[in-house]
Amino acid sequence: MELSTRIRGILDGGDDGWGVYYKARAMKAAGVDVTELTIGEHDIRTDPSILKAMYDAAMGGHTGYVDVPGTPSLRDAVAQRVEHQTHVPTTRRNVLITPGGQAALFAAHMAACDDGDTALFIDPHYTTYPGTIRSVGAKAMAIPARSRDGFQPDLDAVRRAAKGAKSLLINTPNNPTGVIYTDDTLQGLAQVCRDEDLWLISDEVYDSQVWHGAHLSPRALPGMAERTLVVGSMSKSHAMTGSRLGWIIGPDEAIAHLATLSINTNYGVAGFIQDAALFALRQGPGFEAKIAAPFRRRRDAATPLFSGQEAARLIPSDGAMYLMVDIRATGLSGEEFALRLLDDEHIAVMPGESFGHAAAGHVRIAMTIDDDRFLDAVERLIEFANTLTAGDTQ
Amino acid sequence: MELSTRIRGILDGGDDGWGVYYKARAMKAAGVDVTELTIGEHDIRTDPSILKAMYDAAMGGHTGYVDVPGTPSLRDAVAQRVEHQTHVPTTRRNVLITPGGQAALFAAHMAACDDGDTALFIDPHYTTYPGTIRSVGAKAMAIPARSRDGFQPDLDAVRRAAKGAKSLLINTPNNPTGVIYTDDTLQGLAQVCRDEDLWLISDEVYDSQVWHGAHLSPRALPGMAERTLVVGSMSKSHAMTGSRLGWIIGPDEAIAHLATLSINTNYGVAGFIQDAALFALRQGPGFEAKIAAPFRRRRDAATPLFSGQEAARLIPSDGAMYLMVDIRATGLSGEEFALRLLDDEHIAVMPGESFGHAAAGHVRIAMTIDDDRFLDAVERLIEFANTLTAGDTQ
Repeated sequence: MELSTRIRGILDGGDDGWGVYYKARAMKAAGVDVTELTIGEHDIRTDPSILKAMYDAAMGGHTGYVDVPGTPSLRDAVAQRVEHQTHVPTTRRNVLITPGGQAALFAAHMAACDDGDTALFIDPHYTTYPGTIRSVGAKAMAIPARSRDGFQPDLDAVRRAAKGAKSLLINTPNNPTGVIYTDDTLQGLAQVCRDEDLWLISDEVYDSQVWHGAHLSPRALPGMAERTLVVGSMSKSHAMTGSRLGWIIGPDEAIAHLATLSINTNYGVAGFIQDAALFALRQGPGFEAKIAAPFRRRRDAATPLFSGQEAARLIPSDGAMYLMVDIRATGLSGEEFALRLLDDEHIAVMPGESFGHAAAGHVRIAMTIDDDRFLDAVERLIEFANTLTAGDTQ
Repeated sequence: MELSTRIRGILDGGDDGWGVYYKARAMKAAGVDVTELTIGEHDIRTDPSILKAMYDAAMGGHTGYVDVPGTPSLRDAVAQRVEHQTHVPTTRRNVLITPGGQAALFAAHMAACDDGDTALFIDPHYTTYPGTIRSVGAKAMAIPARSRDGFQPDLDAVRRAAKGAKSLLINTPNNPTGVIYTDDTLQGLAQVCRDEDLWLISDEVYDSQVWHGAHLSPRALPGMAERTLVVGSMSKSHAMTGSRLGWIIGPDEAIAHLATLSINTNYGVAGFIQDAALFALRQGPGFEAKIAAPFRRRRDAATPLFSGQEAARLIPSDGAMYLMVDIRATGLSGEEFALRLLDDEHIAVMPGESFGHAAAGHVRIAMTIDDDRFLDAVERLIEFANTLTAGDTQ
C-alpha cells in the first residue's frame, strides 16, 4: 500500500553518517569498554527535585487535559526568561509550549512554509534539520559554512540562496561546531531576512552553554521580533532531554496559529511535565549554570591539549557541549578517522559527515563523560591523529 | 509577516460551535453552579499506582533520550493487547508510540496523504478531524451519516466520495454519537477501501468502552491489515488523558516511515511516561473495565429515562462516554437548545453542530459526572425539551 511521497522523501536516501554510532553501540552491547563521546546528552540525570515536582503535580491531580498552548504559568515563566535574557518585551501570547524542541522546529517550519517552498539551513547542521524541512513538504537547501571561517555562515552565500526562499534556520550556540555566531554574522543574517522577507527560525536550545563571548538572540535585532521564531527547550539547559518539553517564541499572531496547529498535531504537553518545567525554571540562572558547568570545565581543560597540534586542530569552542576537530591533515575522512579510532582506541566520536557536507574531514567530540576519562580520550585522539600523520609522511 | 497558507487554513473560518462550552466555563468562573456535561474526560484522575510507576521510572534514571518509535517493552505490550483483541498477528514492528492519540491521527494522515490529496471523514466527527487533515495540507471531505440511520455511515455516499481519495478516517465506538459501527458497515467500508485503494485510518480510542454488541477492529477484516492505520491511546481506556500517550498500529513499512517522521516531528515520548503506560497495560482488561464501569452504569441508568420520549430522543448508545440526543422536535437547533438549557437550567451540553453538520438539532451529553447529578441533569434536560415542545404546540 503506497505511502505519501512526502513521508517517503524525509530521508534523502544517502548514508546518514551514523554508522560509527551504531557500531559503537553494538561493541558496547558485546562487552567492549567503549568511550562514547557521541550523543549530546548530559552524564547526569534529571535532578530529583524536578522529578519530585512532577510527581507532586501529578498526585495533586494535574493529570487531565490542559490548555493546549501551555499552562499560563509556564508560558509566563518562559516569557520572563526570554525577556530577561534578550530585553525584548515578551508575554505568554508570544510563547507556545511544545512536546520538545524538535516539535518546535517542525511547527516553526509549518508556520513559515507551504508545500514546495524553499527553506534554508546552515551546513554543518543538527541531524534532523533537512528531514524536518522535508517533513513539512518544503525543499531543504543547505548553505555551507566553512571550516576556515570558523564555521560562521557565509553571508554572501546566504544572500544568494535567500531569493525566493521562505525561511532560514540557524543554530547558535551551534551543534555540532561549538561555534557562537558573532554579532556581525547575526546582523548580516537579519539583514538578509529583512531584505528578502524570510522568516528566521532561530534554534537557541544551547543558550545556557556559553563559554566565550555572549549569545545574542537575533529576535532582539531591529525589525526581527516580527519575523523570528525562536526554538527553545528544557533539554540542554536543565538536563531534561527525556521530558520532551520545548517552546516557540514568536509574534502573537504566529503563536495563535501555531496553537491551532498544536491542537491538530499533538494536543499539548502533559500538565505534570509543564509543572516540573516551571519548578525547574524557578530555580533560576544559577541552576542552569550548574548544569552547564561540567561542559565549561571540560572545554577549558581540553582546549590547551590542542595547542600547537597540526593533525587534530580544534575549532575554537565558544559554546554548547561539543568540540569540533579538524583532522583533514591525517588524510582521512571524518568517518574513516572515527571508525579507526573506534577500532583501535575504543573511542567513539561522530564523523563531521554526520552533520552534512561542510564538516567533512572533522569529528565532533561530545563532552559528556566524567572529566578524567574525557581528557584521557581527547589526549588519545590527538595522539592517534599524530600517529596517522606521521605514518603519512614516512 | 506572512504565515503559510496551510497553517492559516487549518480552521475553515466558520463558528467552531464551542460557544456553549466557553460560556459555561465563564459562568462557572463567575461562581454559577453549572453542571458540565461537555468534555470527554473522566471524573476520576489517573490512578495513583500509575503515577507511582512513572515516578519510580524517572527516579530510576529513565529521564534521557529513548528509542524514538517507543520503548521495546511498551511496543510489545501494545502489540500484545492488539493481537489479543483482534487476533491479527502484531509485533512491535507494527507499533509506533506517539505523544497522544491526536499526534497519531496527524501522523497517520501524513503517511497517507500528500499536499492537495483528498482525505475522507465521517460527519458527525471528533472536533479535530477536519483540522488534522488540513494540517497535512490535504482536502478534508466530510461524508454525512444520518440520524435516521442511527449515524451508521452511508456506504453509497462513501463509495461515491472515495473515487480519487487517499484515505478514509472512521471512529468506532464513536465520539460524538455513542454508536458502534456494525459488522456490515465495517465490511462495506473495508470493501470501498480495497476497491478504491484507500488507506483506512481507524480511530479506536474508545475500544474499551463497549456497552452493547462488540467492537470490531477493521484491521482484522480480509486484506485490511496492509491498508489500515489504527489510532489508539491510553487516554480513555486508562484515564490518562493528560499523559499524552497514544500509538499507531500499521504495516511494518508504514511504521518504519512513521518512525522517521516521529524523529522529525517530536522525537518520541518521555521514557517515564512510557513506563507508566506499560505498568497500566499490565493491569490487564480488568483495570480497563473498572475505568469504563461508571460510563456503562450511567448509560444503563439514563437509557430508560428516554423511553417513550418524543422531544428528546436518545440515539441508542452502544459505546463511548456520550449520549447523543435528537432534540429536533423542539424546533431548536442544537446550539439554541444548549444555550437555553445552560441559561435556564445551568446544564452545559455540546451542540451537535460542534461536530459537523450531520448532528445538527442534536446535543451530546458527556457522562462524566457522578451518577446522581448526572441522572438529575438528564431528567431536567428531558423535562426542558418537553416544556419547549409543549410551548410550540400551544
